[in-house]
Amino acid sequence: MSQPSNSADALARLAAVIESRLPARGGDPDKSYVARLLHKGPDAFLKKVGEEATEVVMAAKDADHGGDRSKIVNEVADLWFHTMITLAHYGLKPADVVAELERREGTSGIEEKALRKAQAREGAEK
Amino acid sequence: MSQPSNSADALARLAAVIESRLPARGGDPDKSYVARLLHKGPDAFLKKVGEEATEVVMAAKDADHGGDRSKIVNEVADLWFHTMITLAHYGLKPADVVAELERREGTSGIEEKALRKAQAREGAEK
Amino acid sequence: MSQPSNSADALARLAAVIESRLPARGGDPDKSYVARLLHKGPDAFLKKVGEEATEVVMAAKDADHGGDRSKIVNEVADLWFHTMITLAHYGLKPADVVAELERREGTSGIEEKALRKAQAREGAEK
Amino acid sequence: MSQPSNSADALARLAAVIESRLPARGGDPDKSYVARLLHKGPDAFLKKVGEEATEVVMAAKDADHGGDRSKIVNEVADLWFHTMITLAHYGLKPADVVAELERREGTSGIEEKALRKAQAREGAEK
Repeated sequence: MSQPSNSADALARLAAVIESRLPARGGDPDKSYVARLLHKGPDAFLKKVGEEATEVVMAAKDADHGGDRSKIVNEVADLWFHTMITLAHYGLKPADVVAELERREGTSGIEEKALRKAQAREGAEK
Repeated sequence: MSQPSNSADALARLAAVIESRLPARGGDPDKSYVARLLHKGPDAFLKKVGEEATEVVMAAKDADHGGDRSKIVNEVADLWFHTMITLAHYGLKPADVVAELERREGTSGIEEKALRKAQAREGAEK
Repeated sequence: MSQPSNSADALARLAAVIESRLPARGGDPDKSYVARLLHKGPDAFLKKVGEEATEVVMAAKDADHGGDRSKIVNEVADLWFHTMITLAHYGLKPADVVAELERREGTSGIEEKALRKAQAREGAEK
Repeated sequence: MSQPSNSADALARLAAVIESRLPARGGDPDKSYVARLLHKGPDAFLKKVGEEATEVVMAAKDADHGGDRSKIVNEVADLWFHTMITLAHYGLKPADVVAELERREGTSGIEEKALRKAQAREGAEK
């Protein structure tokens, strides 16, 4: 298994590889899948985000019915990978996303607010 | 900004918080949004995965037309967060996903294969 | 069961009801769910399109594993309903969509082209 | 433009064409895109449902920023088409979906219930 101390480096390293495929950085659409998606523009990789999210859902439903859980890992990896391509196009980094997740974790009341919304919703459904 | 060396810890720490909300771990659906989603089961959090992927797409399209890029960070954080809830339910960890991404990065030929598929697809579209 | 000759009328009638909820037509967001979505604007109903598509996928996967097929009908109805709200916002009608589907059906070569693309994709996957 | 009286027939006619591509009806995956999707099974066409829903969202966001509305019609047609392939696989018909939409239209209180849920949700968000 991966060691957590290397995982952050792995995300940053993967982001650096993706960024090196940007058209402005000389990424060659004839030699790299990532360069090709970035060259084609947002609709190309955003469509993949929607498609890969659907594949996560299907892999999870299959696991509910006895399917292999490793398929979930593969599909979440595909989904995260295409969101990282999206981030790179807009000059953003996975570290920005992790920082935002950290910020929320540290903000008391976040879960409570989400919970109040969910409870109100369910109250209304009755 | 977040330091890369802390980011992995942040993901692992967030995963631990999410796991502590599992029903088997005593997560209380009346006190925590995550516990509530986990208690309701797969359809509840998988629906959110599809919804948050759509919000990433909308935030990106808005950014294309002059919108604030920080909205993309927020929506990707929401999407990753709900995929981490999904992972927790199935006994999986973000480190498994990062390990899979690392494995691919290290596997020569992966990008080339994806590229060949994309080129064949486009050739056929002409 | 519905008679085909009434189905078109049903779609046109439902579209007329939805259109009567448009803000410009005096739709009241405090009295109607559709008026509320249209009043909140595109992100509100587009998010629902993504969410309902995910629910169609989940209902289908459940049916694969012995679940009730009527859930698929319900979820497709939800999905079509929210795409009809989308159409109404942009001044479009279900009849435009049906006309486009009809046009394709009558255009020889459409299926052949889609097929060539799929075959090229699969050839590359080998 | 299409006449409403023909639209229902168009949906039923298109459904009949799709059904004729079912493996059990002798649909040939080497000659028809629909037969190929049906032959590959649920994951193949369900993935397309998620992808096409994303494309509807992107076309709508583009229209918000001055893009061509006819792209929305095309993408909704793609989405409905792939939901009709889904229906055919499970032995269901577009008429079943239209009947469900009609049933809801005739059921007083449906919109009111959806509205109460939305209001409760927004109340909690404040």
